Amino acid sequence: MISRSCAGLLRPHKMSLGRACGPARCTVPNQWARRSSASTEPLQPDSEGRTAGAPSPQKHIPFTSEKYPNMKRDTRFSQLNSRHVQYFKDLLGGGSAVIDGVSVDASADLEPFNSDWMRKYKGHTKLVIKPASTEEISQALKYCNDNMLAVVPQGGNTGLVGGSVPVYDEIVLSTSRINTIRSFDPVAGTLVVDAGCILESVDQFLADKGYIFPLDLGAKGSCQIGGNVATNAGGLRLLRYGSLHGNVLGLEVVLPDGTIMDDLTTLRKNNTGYDLKQLFIGGEGTLGIITGVSILCPQRSQAVNVAFFALESFEKVQHAYREAKQQLSEILSAFELMDGRSQDLVHNVTNKKRPLEGDHPFYCLIETSGSNAEHDKEKLHQFLEHVMSEEIVSDGTLADNASQMQSLWSWREGITECLGHWGGVYKYDVSIPLSDLYELVEDTRARLSSAGLVGDTNEHPVVAVVGYGHMGDSNLHLNVATRRFDKAVEEKLEPFVYEWIAKRNGSISAEHGLGLQKKPYIGYSRSETMIRLMKQIKELFDPRGIMNPYKYI
Amino acid sequence: MISRSCAGLLRPHKMSLGRACGPARCTVPNQWARRSSASTEPLQPDSEGRTAGAPSPQKHIPFTSEKYPNMKRDTRFSQLNSRHVQYFKDLLGGGSAVIDGVSVDASADLEPFNSDWMRKYKGHTKLVIKPASTEEISQALKYCNDNMLAVVPQGGNTGLVGGSVPVYDEIVLSTSRINTIRSFDPVAGTLVVDAGCILESVDQFLADKGYIFPLDLGAKGSCQIGGNVATNAGGLRLLRYGSLHGNVLGLEVVLPDGTIMDDLTTLRKNNTGYDLKQLFIGGEGTLGIITGVSILCPQRSQAVNVAFFALESFEKVQHAYREAKQQLSEILSAFELMDGRSQDLVHNVTNKKRPLEGDHPFYCLIETSGSNAEHDKEKLHQFLEHVMSEEIVSDGTLADNASQMQSLWSWREGITECLGHWGGVYKYDVSIPLSDLYELVEDTRARLSSAGLVGDTNEHPVVAVVGYGHMGDSNLHLNVATRRFDKAVEEKLEPFVYEWIAKRNGSISAEHGLGLQKKPYIGYSRSETMIRLMKQIKELFDPRGIMNPYKYI
Repeated sequence: MISRSCAGLLRPHKMSLGRACGPARCTVPNQWARRSSASTEPLQPDSEGRTAGAPSPQKHIPFTSEKYPNMKRDTRFSQLNSRHVQYFKDLLGGGSAVIDGVSVDASADLEPFNSDWMRKYKGHTKLVIKPASTEEISQALKYCNDNMLAVVPQGGNTGLVGGSVPVYDEIVLSTSRINTIRSFDPVAGTLVVDAGCILESVDQFLADKGYIFPLDLGAKGSCQIGGNVATNAGGLRLLRYGSLHGNVLGLEVVLPDGTIMDDLTTLRKNNTGYDLKQLFIGGEGTLGIITGVSILCPQRSQAVNVAFFALESFEKVQHAYREAKQQLSEILSAFELMDGRSQDLVHNVTNKKRPLEGDHPFYCLIETSGSNAEHDKEKLHQFLEHVMSEEIVSDGTLADNASQMQSLWSWREGITECLGHWGGVYKYDVSIPLSDLYELVEDTRARLSSAGLVGDTNEHPVVAVVGYGHMGDSNLHLNVATRRFDKAVEEKLEPFVYEWIAKRNGSISAEHGLGLQKKPYIGYSRSETMIRLMKQIKELFDPRGIMNPYKYI
Repeated sequence: MISRSCAGLLRPHKMSLGRACGPARCTVPNQWARRSSASTEPLQPDSEGRTAGAPSPQKHIPFTSEKYPNMKRDTRFSQLNSRHVQYFKDLLGGGSAVIDGVSVDASADLEPFNSDWMRKYKGHTKLVIKPASTEEISQALKYCNDNMLAVVPQGGNTGLVGGSVPVYDEIVLSTSRINTIRSFDPVAGTLVVDAGCILESVDQFLADKGYIFPLDLGAKGSCQIGGNVATNAGGLRLLRYGSLHGNVLGLEVVLPDGTIMDDLTTLRKNNTGYDLKQLFIGGEGTLGIITGVSILCPQRSQAVNVAFFALESFEKVQHAYREAKQQLSEILSAFELMDGRSQDLVHNVTNKKRPLEGDHPFYCLIETSGSNAEHDKEKLHQFLEHVMSEEIVSDGTLADNASQMQSLWSWREGITECLGHWGGVYKYDVSIPLSDLYELVEDTRARLSSAGLVGDTNEHPVVAVVGYGHMGDSNLHLNVATRRFDKAVEEKLEPFVYEWIAKRNGSISAEHGLGLQKKPYIGYSRSETMIRLMKQIKELFDPRGIMNPYKYI
């Protein structure tokens, strides 16, 4: 029980917000919930294709249609009229179910549905519908399909690539009113929930039963399970529990023509035909709307330990990772990478005492989660002794209590916020084969340095080029901290970074998806054959193209 | 190191053969390899839709086309002619690449490709092609597609549902000549192999590097990775490592028109479009031929422990399973269920000393695999003390050494073979929500008993109705041991069993797939909507229908 509460202390709401991708991604869904009524303290908007690290004064959000003048509204779609609105009022009962931008002054009400929490994308929707059941979603979608009304499914609206907000006048279909936990089998650990359930609420429900949701991410206080599955969210628990493609057991989906596809099995094994649900996992709402999710939940670990150590090269980081997998295997729950420059910046900004003496080119944070605190600590001690005696690791420390764990995690979690200290940050969230992972940072740094763009003085736009991320998932965050956004920097970065990734068969989107932002770049990660097949799948499930148009592929 | 070798002793080839589904499934691929040249000791053939448990004298295999007289050869397909054969000889170089049933007496050579190891299905192919590269497979398939020649992809031909042998004169495309390990990243644990690699060879390759293939099954000495993926094989390691849908990172697939779909990424995270590879996992070769597989491999456990215990009710079994997950969580690698009757039969046949005193209605076997033998044993001891003091478990024992482990496992592994002692066995491999799992056995037993079909004397066809299986995967083996196959028994069993499963939203095929055998029954596990969508997917990828016809859906 002591250990369980440590885990709780280790990830209080505020702490955990930043862990996945730093504050930019993570704090805002909650700020956004406030902002949607009071509109205070928005985040700093940022240059195309990147997110900025630190809050800044409020700013007008430009319409996406203005930011992308070459994109045009699809004229096949109908314009919303009063007859349509009346249909939805009749179907859904009006009131909270329908926000009618036609008949009432809805500017205050529609704003949170029209724009994303990064304040980067803004649509022109005049109608948000909030059906209260799968059946209502079915009828609503059928009507949209029959009447050529485009639809954007929206969960917690915490995405990072503009996938959950309209571009033009698409109707927003919010899943927030279908939010019941349908069933939980405490023996098998199988959970069935409505798509609109909030991740954190579900995880709390499971915690009371000794189970854990196999996904955790910073936006958990706002994001919905349906959206998590639709975007194939990765998050903090992937190293230990694997991806949603393995954990989701079944889905209930409403197809664009209103057909309800009931594949909501709770079986762990079911080899009867093509595994269609997989297409909707990461389908970003372009094939249908997920209304129910069945998922396998593991036991919650009773013990958590954290270690932090310094290494002299990326080769040694790889070596340490290999040793950690070998010696800690079944209890290893996080292996996070931070380069020396990122830690220098955190130190410069926070002025906190460093966990280890001296300067080192790399640092790693290891977390273990198991069923016996003493066993796990013993394994961690043995591991640290081994890697230090073998000179794989130069120095290391092991947290003795929850507050020390929290303090060690802050050196990883604090990076994104600190990077924003000087101004804007160019951020790339990519996946690269492990052996090449850090080379992208070195090559990018060399490229910007040789162009004279990096330096300690104000005439240099770039403060530092740093790398950190989820080593265990081959997921790198390449970040370029700047004093100001600068065209010269951007030209050096793109398409260089995408081409570099494509050459190593990496992914331009490790976990954030395509949405609107990365749609043009899919060719860097997928072949023409794959893209053609994807388009055929889209055509098959959504022949009229009403689902989340202008995005994805 | 001691523990590692224990694991080896625990699963020598002969022992592990039976574990997945007993000897019927498991020993034969190796016998078959012998039989293909010498034709000795075939298995007992069995009644439709079931496999028999024990070997019997050799018997002629009837043609599938004769067993299913209502099924007709699709007349859209071309008849093989000498021009076709010449094309393949030119393409593949003749010799081992082509077995030409037209120009040579090929009865001896074609037999192993025309029939399955259970000697249940037999086709009429006149041509087997064995391309040596993905490029050759691409050209061969394109030619077949252009010339309307039907194709059956064949790996190790160890399937259980007739999926890998032709029905009529389909060309067999064997993947056995593409069998290279393409790459292994010892840091990330990502392995890329040709589809034709044998599972056991790959696992041995990984063992030498401290890794493990996340799938293990009885036929490992013959089955190929491509076939494993195409059938979404479940096997022995699913409880611990999850399904292939979560572990496969990428695939290379040749589509029916010869297009090579290169999705052979080694990335753990890649959110760039629909996850198309998932359709081929469990697609049973009906959409294309898998030629390459990229998969994430976990560390090999250094310590293995086994416990065996008795329980007084299925409620207590569920309770024990829940406790095991809680207390052993990260080290739990098997939780196998055996009912008392199954253990009685094993005892009657083998006359071995039972592991525990007295008769109990249920027994369970627990295996743990971890990185520290002492820690794991301590956890197991604590677990056993707890469940015994709480009277969840009536009695239990913990293996002290490898030979004791092997002995305990034999009470689970020996079941299938012993069931065949009296004659034939009706076998169902199904998946049911855990709380209802054993009820199917009770209901089936009551049904057969009330019809007067079960008894100790020869006038009763049924010896016993038993249940056992992978508790951790909700995967039950319902077995009806008989003195003889009997129409009255069959009529009581079907469609009763399928209907019973359908009512509980279970699966009629937990891990064996559909193939030819279960094609008619998919409606018991899938809705019309799902089946319609599956047919559309098939039409999209294989518009001319040349891939593995007459099967699946």
